[in-house]
Amino acid sequence: MPMLALRLDEQGARVAEMDAPELLPGTALVRVTLAGVCNTDLELVKGYMGFRGVLGHEFVGCVESGPREWMARRVVGEINFACGRCATCEAGLARHCPTRQVMGIQGADGAIAERVRVPLANLHAVPDAVSDARAVFTEPLAAAFEILEQVPVARGTRCLVLGDGKLGLLVAQVLAVAGARVHAVGRHPEKLALLARRGIETSLAGDGAPESCELVVEATGSADGFRTAVAATLPRGTLVLKSTLAESPQVDLAPLVIHEIRVVGSRCGPFAPALRALANAAVDVLPLISARVPLARAEEALTLAAAPGALKVLIES
Amino acid sequence: MPMLALRLDEQGARVAEMDAPELLPGTALVRVTLAGVCNTDLELVKGYMGFRGVLGHEFVGCVESGPREWMARRVVGEINFACGRCATCEAGLARHCPTRQVMGIQGADGAIAERVRVPLANLHAVPDAVSDARAVFTEPLAAAFEILEQVPVARGTRCLVLGDGKLGLLVAQVLAVAGARVHAVGRHPEKLALLARRGIETSLAGDGAPESCELVVEATGSADGFRTAVAATLPRGTLVLKSTLAESPQVDLAPLVIHEIRVVGSRCGPFAPALRALANAAVDVLPLISARVPLARAEEALTLAAAPGALKVLIES
Repeated sequence: MPMLALRLDEQGARVAEMDAPELLPGTALVRVTLAGVCNTDLELVKGYMGFRGVLGHEFVGCVESGPREWMARRVVGEINFACGRCATCEAGLARHCPTRQVMGIQGADGAIAERVRVPLANLHAVPDAVSDARAVFTEPLAAAFEILEQVPVARGTRCLVLGDGKLGLLVAQVLAVAGARVHAVGRHPEKLALLARRGIETSLAGDGAPESCELVVEATGSADGFRTAVAATLPRGTLVLKSTLAESPQVDLAPLVIHEIRVVGSRCGPFAPALRALANAAVDVLPLISARVPLARAEEALTLAAAPGALKVLIES
Repeated sequence: MPMLALRLDEQGARVAEMDAPELLPGTALVRVTLAGVCNTDLELVKGYMGFRGVLGHEFVGCVESGPREWMARRVVGEINFACGRCATCEAGLARHCPTRQVMGIQGADGAIAERVRVPLANLHAVPDAVSDARAVFTEPLAAAFEILEQVPVARGTRCLVLGDGKLGLLVAQVLAVAGARVHAVGRHPEKLALLARRGIETSLAGDGAPESCELVVEATGSADGFRTAVAATLPRGTLVLKSTLAESPQVDLAPLVIHEIRVVGSRCGPFAPALRALANAAVDVLPLISARVPLARAEEALTLAAAPGALKVLIES
């Protein structure tokens, strides 16, 4: 069966007609309703990971074929397709399975398409209380919740979030929901206003050095952001790296040693708390939508997502 | 009272006669028996920290003046002189006191001298079972024990130690004493042999990539060592930075995020477990002594310590 998809090949990312994926044992075919564009997609187009195939790893859709218990259910899907049998998987670290495929990133076609194939183990049913436009944020919101799995965040923990992009805005809200005292620093007054409305302290980058905190999250993806983050982490504090840098910055590691700072890389996270937070409106995601574009014009979605100040661009199909 | 000391000033490090330190309230004057040269001393001579004053922060000696209860006792001393009153000190992080002086490193004269002044709060009595030549290793051994304060090391934890310098050799032994399965990688067969005699697995750098481990300690102080350490840390594993790099290496931070690695800077550590390990011979330090030099020739000690392959150079006074 033919379908439209946003494919990345040597010529770049283009919407093209291709065969829909086949149903394999242990998987479901999902008819995608909405997909989101992530900064990682833009990096993939630039050559990151050398990926070739259908882009997209943020989606919500309905199961079109698969086992009876999943049929016609509204679902989101975790993006790391693990073997489930290796030592890493058995240690409960399936998201780090060394032979994993990653949807739309590594060895598996993604969800900016009419249909996507997802292992059943990766599916999560979407509660009725969560609209499609909210549900499509499950994957990036789960990445924000990952911080709580890695770092103890007690009520009143002072946190600094650097970066007011999509991930920074989600991280700041998740930390606030966890009871932390959050200060978010960004470059866009209108984005910071989204956080201020939720009682989060904000300031513009450049308006003086932020007060040092025991937990700092670097979500700017820039070398400058990393340096600012190191300088703003208290001794024995924790610096969470939430975005991959395209560049390899010159890093002075001495302050990490002198102040015994803990740098914690943080990637994909747990879907369950993200879905709960969306269901009970603990986190506000709708203001993060910059644009909606039909699948047939998905190339345009990439351009919109790359524009300065853009937040989430959704692709409808 | 005049005394000899190894002073660092604009002209470099030179042995000179100077006034002995005055006794101040809350301090003791220690007649130094043995002092050790640390790589940090060599960095200070190159300009690190902009330090000017008497070098040296590893010593053992006898209290010559001070309160009666300390008189004539054999002591070692912690090197961070904290205020004891600020929020950091009250949080139990005196070694990170923001207004601290650091013996022979920052704002306080050091111990490569006939006498050194030490706050009473920093003194530790040396058990009779610990000879002077062993006791002078208390400070660097405490730095190795610091890892156990920061990172859980369970029996059987697989650890990789990169670097067979003084600190690497101490770290490998401390981790082994804690029950870890340690593999040490270095460049000097004769140094690795010290570890092999204690049942620690060793290999030469360059003999194939080391097996990845959940805990990796970077003690080479080189940018290459850091990169090797990142590559050898298992997903969700911990990389301890035990030595400051003089250079600011170009660091690809993406693997830290993708594999969710935890990088932990580690500096000074607790003296009590170090003294216990020396008293019960759990750690072998005597083979780490490369040379002993009288204080009057302490400049020579720096040269010897900087020579390729050198281990600990001690200064006798």
